[in-house]
Amino acid sequence: MSKSGKAKTSFQLKTPKGTKDWDGTDVSLRDQIFSTITEVFKRHGAITIDTPVFELKEILSGKYGEDSKLIYDLADQGGELCSLRYDLTVPFARYLAMNSIQSIKRYHIAKVYRRDQPAMSKGRLREFYQCDYDIAGVYDPMVPDAEVLRLTTEIFEALGWERRYTIKINHRKILDGIFEVCGVPEDKLRMISSAVDKLDKLPWEEVKKEMTEEKGLAPEVADEIGKYVKLKGGQDILTQLKNDSTLYSNEHLKNGVDSMQLLFDYLQVFGVMDSISFDLSLARGLDYYTGVIYEVITEESGAGGVGSIAAGGRYDELVGMFSGKSQIPCVGISFGLERIFSVIKARLNSGSAKSVQPKHVDVYVMAFGGKDFTGLLPERMRVAAELWDAGIKAEFSYKKKPRLPQQFKAAEGVPFGIILGDDELAAGKVRIKQLGLPEGHAEKDGVLVNKEDIVAEIKQRLETLEDKSLAAQLGAVKV
Amino acid sequence: MSKSGKAKTSFQLKTPKGTKDWDGTDVSLRDQIFSTITEVFKRHGAITIDTPVFELKEILSGKYGEDSKLIYDLADQGGELCSLRYDLTVPFARYLAMNSIQSIKRYHIAKVYRRDQPAMSKGRLREFYQCDYDIAGVYDPMVPDAEVLRLTTEIFEALGWERRYTIKINHRKILDGIFEVCGVPEDKLRMISSAVDKLDKLPWEEVKKEMTEEKGLAPEVADEIGKYVKLKGGQDILTQLKNDSTLYSNEHLKNGVDSMQLLFDYLQVFGVMDSISFDLSLARGLDYYTGVIYEVITEESGAGGVGSIAAGGRYDELVGMFSGKSQIPCVGISFGLERIFSVIKARLNSGSAKSVQPKHVDVYVMAFGGKDFTGLLPERMRVAAELWDAGIKAEFSYKKKPRLPQQFKAAEGVPFGIILGDDELAAGKVRIKQLGLPEGHAEKDGVLVNKEDIVAEIKQRLETLEDKSLAAQLGAVKV
Repeated sequence: MSKSGKAKTSFQLKTPKGTKDWDGTDVSLRDQIFSTITEVFKRHGAITIDTPVFELKEILSGKYGEDSKLIYDLADQGGELCSLRYDLTVPFARYLAMNSIQSIKRYHIAKVYRRDQPAMSKGRLREFYQCDYDIAGVYDPMVPDAEVLRLTTEIFEALGWERRYTIKINHRKILDGIFEVCGVPEDKLRMISSAVDKLDKLPWEEVKKEMTEEKGLAPEVADEIGKYVKLKGGQDILTQLKNDSTLYSNEHLKNGVDSMQLLFDYLQVFGVMDSISFDLSLARGLDYYTGVIYEVITEESGAGGVGSIAAGGRYDELVGMFSGKSQIPCVGISFGLERIFSVIKARLNSGSAKSVQPKHVDVYVMAFGGKDFTGLLPERMRVAAELWDAGIKAEFSYKKKPRLPQQFKAAEGVPFGIILGDDELAAGKVRIKQLGLPEGHAEKDGVLVNKEDIVAEIKQRLETLEDKSLAAQLGAVKV
Repeated sequence: MSKSGKAKTSFQLKTPKGTKDWDGTDVSLRDQIFSTITEVFKRHGAITIDTPVFELKEILSGKYGEDSKLIYDLADQGGELCSLRYDLTVPFARYLAMNSIQSIKRYHIAKVYRRDQPAMSKGRLREFYQCDYDIAGVYDPMVPDAEVLRLTTEIFEALGWERRYTIKINHRKILDGIFEVCGVPEDKLRMISSAVDKLDKLPWEEVKKEMTEEKGLAPEVADEIGKYVKLKGGQDILTQLKNDSTLYSNEHLKNGVDSMQLLFDYLQVFGVMDSISFDLSLARGLDYYTGVIYEVITEESGAGGVGSIAAGGRYDELVGMFSGKSQIPCVGISFGLERIFSVIKARLNSGSAKSVQPKHVDVYVMAFGGKDFTGLLPERMRVAAELWDAGIKAEFSYKKKPRLPQQFKAAEGVPFGIILGDDELAAGKVRIKQLGLPEGHAEKDGVLVNKEDIVAEIKQRLETLEDKSLAAQLGAVKV
C-alpha cells in the first residue's frame, strides 16, 4: 500500500507462520532430547516405522472431531487428494490395518501439522515434533498400559527431571459413569466432558457456567458433577469411589474403577505411583480414546505456560475404523518435543550451566611461516585427509595463505591444533597443540611429534579429554 | 462402477502415490546408511540445520526451471500460500540470506517432494530423502569444491563400495565455452545443454536429432559439439582442451579449464582422482549451477537402472536471489537415500549375507510353573523394571499366565532369557539362559544366579556377544 517497502525481494524472507528453522545449539539440545527418548523407547523393545508426511485425505477424515478444521490439505493438482498428517497415531492405525499387523511395539519421532494459532515461545507451533510410543495387540488388561506409564517416568528420569512432573490419569469409563449417575443426557456427554477438561485452566464457577448456560445442563446436575470432578489424589480417591454405593453400582463406573485398581497395582510394582495424580477432571479432547487417559504436566505447564508435555491413552477402536475385520486394541503416549525443549531451555538459561557451542571438529590443521610463506595448502590438505581416513573430525582453512591469527580464530572451541611450518616439516615433524590452555601451562606451546605419529597422538589425546557435551551439562544442572 | 467392490472402507487403504511406509529390516538398513553418511558429514566439520517441510510458495518460484511444475502446493486455506520443499538447497539458500550468514558447513538429511512419475523399485519416489552437505562462504578457488568430492569418496568407502562407483565431473564454463566456440546461439544455450545431458542414456545420433530437428540447431554446429562432448577421461582430456588453441582462446572455456586444473591438483593431493571421470557431456538440469558440476553413478545406474545416486555442484548466485546485498558462494552435494538403499539392498539380496531381523531387546523375562502356576506377573514386572533401571533392553509377556512355549517363541532372536520359577524364587535365585544355543552345549539349560546379581550377570554376558549388527554384515558383504 505504501511506497516505503524496505524489502529487496517482493516478499518477506521468512519461514511460513508457525514454523521455524532449527539451528545452532538448539539443534544439539533437540538431538540430545531425541536420543534420550529413543534410548528409552528401544529399552522397551520398540522398533520404529516411518510413514509419509501426507496421507490420503479420507484417512484423516472423521478422526479428530472438531479439530479436523486444523488439518492442512495439499492443493488439488490432479490425482489423489491428500492432507498433511495431524498426528502420528492415525497413520499408525492406518499402517496396522493396511498390513494386518496383530501386535507391535513401535516408536515414531516425526513432525506433524496443525493450522492452529501459534505461540512459538511456549512451544506451540504449526509444524512440530511428536515422539510417539504405542503398543498394539490383544493382551491381559492394563499390563501394556502400565508399561507405557513406566516408560514415561523413565524418560523424564533420563532427562534429569526427577520429581518435577506429574502424570495426571483418569479413565473414560469412570467419567462416563459419573456423568450417567449425575444425570447428564447421552447427547450431551462429549460436550460436558470437554467442559470438565477445562478445569485445569478455569475455576469451577466458569466451567459450571459453560455447562449450564452454554450447554443447557440443569444446574443441580452440574453441581452433582462438581462434587466428583474436583477430586484429585491416588489410591484414596479410588477407595472413595468404590465406597460410594450409588456410583459403584453404575456398570461403566465399576468397570473403570476396577480397571484403574488393577493399573494402580501394576504401577505400584513398577514403582511409579509417586508420579501419578488420579484426576477426575482429566477428559482429553480426542474422540478415539476408549479407556485410560493421561497427560503429563510440569511446573511450567500452568495457565499461560506450555500446557501438557506428553499425553495419551488407550484407543481400542481406531484400527477397526480402517478395517472392519480386525480390531486391534492399542495404547500409547505422545511426547511433545517443542514443549519439553522450551522447558529445558528455560531451565538451562536460568541455571548455572552455560550452553556452549558444541565443538564441530576435533582438530584444526594450520600452517605458519615467514615472508616466503606459501601457505602450505597441499600439506594441510594431506594431513587433514590422513585424519579423515582415521575417522577423526578435522578442518583446515580454505585460504591458500591464511594468517595465523585467522586460523586460531577459526579454531576456537576446537580442542587440538596441528601446526605446520617449513622447518618442522623439513625435519619430518609437526606441532600438536591443545588449544585454550592457560598461560604458563607446561604444554602451552604444544609438542613436536613425528609426521607418521599424528593420528596415534591425536587419538590418544582425544581419549583423555573431559566430557563437555550438552548431555554432561544437562546432568550437571539437573533440569 | 461395478458392484463387486471388495473394500470394507469406501476408499483404498494405501499410502499416497509415490510414497511408502518404512518398516522392518528396511528401517535398520536405512538408519545404517544415514549414520554412515552423517558420521562422514560430521568428520568434515558440518553442523546440521532443519528447515520446515514447506516454504512460502514464492521462495521456491523461479528456482527450478521447467521442473517447477513438479512442486507440491498446499491448498489455499486462508493465510500464506505454501509449497512442499522440492530440494534442500533452496531452503538452505533462503536460510543463509534470511540470517545473513557469511560462512557455514551444514548438512541436512530430510524428505523432499516431487510430483514426478514414480518408479518405486528403482528408488524413484514422490517423497524421498536427500542427504545434503554444502559449504557456503568466500574462499580460495576450488578448495571447498575439492573437499566436497573427497567427502563423497569417503562416504562410498564407508558404505563398503570401494571402486564400484564413478564421480562424473564437468564445469559449466567449459560447456558454455564449447557451445560458444561451436557457434550455438545464446538463446539456445540451455536447451542444447539439456540435450547434451542425455548422452548418458541416448546414442549420439538421437541427441543430434534432438538438437537439430527439435531445437533447430544447424547440423554442422551439432557435429562440432559432438567432437567435444563425447570426450571422457581425466587429466588427458584437460590437456587436450588446453592444447586446442581455438577452444582455449575462448574466455569462458579458459576459465573453466584453469579452474578444473586447480581442482584436479587438489583432488590429486586428496587421493581421489581414481574415482573421477571428467565427462564433457555432463550438464545437469538445474539452472542454479555456476561452476563445477558432478554426478555419482554406479554399476546399477545405467538405462532402466537407478540413475545417479548423488549429484551437486557450485551455485554462487542462488543466495543472492533472496538477498540483493549478500552474495554467498556455495558448493555442495546431495545423496539420494532411496537410490543408494535400493542398490545396497539388491547387492545384499544377491550376496551371501542374509539380512536378519535385528533383535529388539537383550533380555526376555519369562516364568514357568506347575498346575498352581500364578504366572508370576508382578515378579516378571519387577525384574524387567530392574533391567530397565540399568538401561538394559527387556521385555516380558503381557499375559498373566503365559505358557512357556509362547514365551520362548516371543523371545526368538533375543540373546538372553531370564526364567522365573516358584522354587528358584523361594531360594532367592533366577535362571539366566543364553537363547539359541545348540543341543549339548554346556550351558544349554542356563545357569542359576542370585536375584541381586541379575543386572551384573546380564551386563557381563552382553559384552561378550558377537556383533551381529547390520553394519557388521554390510562390512562382511562388501556391498
